Amino acid sequence: MPSANASRKTQEKPREVMDAAEDFAKERYGVSSMIQSQEKSDRVLVRISELTVQKADEVVWVRARVHTSRAKGKQCFLVLRQQQFNVQALVAVGDHASKQMVKFAANINKESIVDVEGVVRKVNQKIGSCTQQDVELHIQKIYVISLAEPRLPLQLDDAIRPEIEGEEEGRATVNQDTRLDNRVIDLRTSTSQAIFRLQSGICHLFRETLVNKGFVEIQTPKIISAASEGGANVFTVSYFKNNAYLAQSPQLYKQMCICADFEKVFCIGPVFRAEDSNTHRHLTEFVGLDIEMAFNYHYHEVVEEIADTLVQIFKGLQERFQTEIQTVSKQFPCEPFKFLEPTLRLEYCEALAMLREAGIEMGDEEDLRRSALLTLYELIQHLISCCCCSSTPNEKLLGRLVKEKYDTDFYILDKYPLAVRPFYTMPDPRNSKQSNSYDMFMRGEEILSGAQRIHDPQLLTERALHHGIDLEKIKAYIDSFRFGAPPHGGGGIGLERVTMLFLGLHNVRQTSMFPRDPKRLTP
Amino acid sequence: MPSANASRKTQEKPREVMDAAEDFAKERYGVSSMIQSQEKSDRVLVRISELTVQKADEVVWVRARVHTSRAKGKQCFLVLRQQQFNVQALVAVGDHASKQMVKFAANINKESIVDVEGVVRKVNQKIGSCTQQDVELHIQKIYVISLAEPRLPLQLDDAIRPEIEGEEEGRATVNQDTRLDNRVIDLRTSTSQAIFRLQSGICHLFRETLVNKGFVEIQTPKIISAASEGGANVFTVSYFKNNAYLAQSPQLYKQMCICADFEKVFCIGPVFRAEDSNTHRHLTEFVGLDIEMAFNYHYHEVVEEIADTLVQIFKGLQERFQTEIQTVSKQFPCEPFKFLEPTLRLEYCEALAMLREAGIEMGDEEDLRRSALLTLYELIQHLISCCCCSSTPNEKLLGRLVKEKYDTDFYILDKYPLAVRPFYTMPDPRNSKQSNSYDMFMRGEEILSGAQRIHDPQLLTERALHHGIDLEKIKAYIDSFRFGAPPHGGGGIGLERVTMLFLGLHNVRQTSMFPRDPKRLTP
Repeated sequence: MPSANASRKTQEKPREVMDAAEDFAKERYGVSSMIQSQEKSDRVLVRISELTVQKADEVVWVRARVHTSRAKGKQCFLVLRQQQFNVQALVAVGDHASKQMVKFAANINKESIVDVEGVVRKVNQKIGSCTQQDVELHIQKIYVISLAEPRLPLQLDDAIRPEIEGEEEGRATVNQDTRLDNRVIDLRTSTSQAIFRLQSGICHLFRETLVNKGFVEIQTPKIISAASEGGANVFTVSYFKNNAYLAQSPQLYKQMCICADFEKVFCIGPVFRAEDSNTHRHLTEFVGLDIEMAFNYHYHEVVEEIADTLVQIFKGLQERFQTEIQTVSKQFPCEPFKFLEPTLRLEYCEALAMLREAGIEMGDEEDLRRSALLTLYELIQHLISCCCCSSTPNEKLLGRLVKEKYDTDFYILDKYPLAVRPFYTMPDPRNSKQSNSYDMFMRGEEILSGAQRIHDPQLLTERALHHGIDLEKIKAYIDSFRFGAPPHGGGGIGLERVTMLFLGLHNVRQTSMFPRDPKRLTP
Repeated sequence: MPSANASRKTQEKPREVMDAAEDFAKERYGVSSMIQSQEKSDRVLVRISELTVQKADEVVWVRARVHTSRAKGKQCFLVLRQQQFNVQALVAVGDHASKQMVKFAANINKESIVDVEGVVRKVNQKIGSCTQQDVELHIQKIYVISLAEPRLPLQLDDAIRPEIEGEEEGRATVNQDTRLDNRVIDLRTSTSQAIFRLQSGICHLFRETLVNKGFVEIQTPKIISAASEGGANVFTVSYFKNNAYLAQSPQLYKQMCICADFEKVFCIGPVFRAEDSNTHRHLTEFVGLDIEMAFNYHYHEVVEEIADTLVQIFKGLQERFQTEIQTVSKQFPCEPFKFLEPTLRLEYCEALAMLREAGIEMGDEEDLRRSALLTLYELIQHLISCCCCSSTPNEKLLGRLVKEKYDTDFYILDKYPLAVRPFYTMPDPRNSKQSNSYDMFMRGEEILSGAQRIHDPQLLTERALHHGIDLEKIKAYIDSFRFGAPPHGGGGIGLERVTMLFLGLHNVRQTSMFPRDPKRLTP
């Protein structure tokens, strides 16, 4: 299939083309014509991960990227890469390769994709710099399938260097904007590959757990007719001759599904927040893992189901994604994520007491809205359900205190003051200042916000009026509860935050493939 | 937990309240106070589906909706419903129930949610109108948990009546707008429950199959900076001080993931099309099941992988969702869905020949753009990849011809004319008028559009210019291929269409929970 030297773009200089005329190996290398599905091929391409001593002395074909190439006398050493795997390869002047062929190999631009035929050879000394440490590939043929441009906007080796190594040894690292501007290359690093494979695993474990628990997956619309929750943080869409809005959460639709007897539902989808926040943990578009379920008598039935779902995710990640966790920790070292079974549940007032004991000045619950801790909720009040409170020093401190006392990175904070939660939050019948609502935290940062929702249209109307919400705008929502509605609750989890905090990373842009914030809309 | 007669809203009239004072059963019925998680309860609620002769003579608690109630002398018969299951229940004046209690039960509004305690009794004659045909429930206590308003905007029994029965017997059916306006009730019918459980199954089978094939799930942004594909059918979003757009497809991002070495990716998410089309098969927002993968030598590797994925979905649905399929067919009768393994692949020119043989006037391929069949593609040209060609009589006819000749409801149409496909479609190297592109059809309607994509930046630039596309707007896209890109292809599947056509339904609004079209943005 590869027709040697039949190149659309050649990197050889004219003089070398002339040399090629006398080159005995000239059919053994070159730039292939573009693969346009000209013909089918029986050739088997072997995965680099399969190149082990079991394959010693076999002739194999491999398609891979040229990670590095280095000429050394009459030889050229290449590192060939395929996702997180790589192998050393060698072209040496001899029976299979001419001087020109070695030179060709040495000049292939990094990140080009090549097809090589080679013999797998066992090596005497382990090759520490490659994942395939016990073998190398002795190349007999090499064809460029897709040629990379000579200048890369960032070097992969720099992109996986730990910050500390860069700082202490004065070696190059890559800043975040360069990474994001050139995301197609940045995503090729072993770290990025591991982060997004693990993220794919979070979604898989989330659904697997919920399907086993009898939940039904739903799809909710993202274009909605009214910015029901105040409207300050909502994106406006031109919808034919009118305006529409992007959903800040699937919550209203999840609840309608509960009123429509689906009983237990989940969805995974984009969530939009027009907040002008440029922090390490805010995105204008993120992925929500949402749960909603009817319960029998107490909203803790919901809390337990959600917490157990997260625990099953943590366990699944530690069982199935240990390689990815280790890969990321090489660049971003962190303590393994710890959690308890069952999950620790603290009441809000207990958390206040812990903070006070640690010397944080704090009023009683009545004064909470004026206290320092309020920053925890400043944003939540006008937002829908999940992932929106700002991370404050107190929140992080509480995380550290909980870790010291209970040895867990994951806990539930229950019974938030009613005043700081959205209008549809069920008040606590035993304490009119409290509510049946909760947040969940990982490594001291909030990853889920949820509550028992009001399922009675009369109380819902009262609470909406209390919050100054225009009843006309939420009429369809309130009407959903007029034809029999079971008690229910739920919550929304931010996928990028869970990924970030599980891996101990420090910026949510590392865990969003193509992040969106007030200043970034590309690529 | 239910405190009898401690009602927030009572439906009893004052005279009856007075009667209640002398009522020996007055603690045994009433309207419960709202469940606010006052306390936890050990009470076990039994599922209606579990009410079988094995439970005969047991006392059970059940929470369910009142589907119907009918007083008959000193008795009241109720049908209690839980999702698609229902059971007959009975309150009769006697040791457990007073006259007032029977009257209370008879007056509970339909669709209210009740907790009942009752004895399961085997019946001598099967109850044909209920799913639990061998038992009935003799009620000893009944409390309203959530009261429905007395007038329902639609009757569930009307909503599941087959059209033909409505027409021939003059009985009420429910029109589509009434259904959609009152979706929370319409979704409670056994038909809707079955449709959306099956749809949840399609997503599950899609992912299960692809994860087993080694695909990675990705999340792609929906807010994008440029309407790269022309812009005619794109929604505009106000993004802080600028404009942005809603993605018409995740395709550009899927391709970037391939360039970033993920090799095989899929995603499920909303897709937005600002088309002013009011047909049975167009929505302005639908759910795309998207696939993209690198291949070795021929794009048929991709075609086979996609077709097999769909076949695994069809098989899985027929194995795991037979009850749902049967339930839907009671209201909307249709032939079981047929498919072949491997999937039938026809070339475009073969399809033309079949149509010609059937007497359809059709020019040769050169004339195709002026032929009647062109309506098939009118819309596709400026759209991104999937699910957008209009359904024409010829397309449906071709489906019938293929069914007659090959006995399959599912087939691939391969090798579309280059002229009718988007600019990034790989031309066929053997025939400059053809392209390496394909659609897939179910029951004669298109559900997937896909192609080998151009992975060479030079050819991509040429083709974009040929299509008159502003290169500046697609710079980031073209640049993605400059640093080595493997040959690749993919396609996008419309979830609502697959659900509709698998079940033989006739409007995509039946398979979208909360459909969006140019005229509908609510609920």
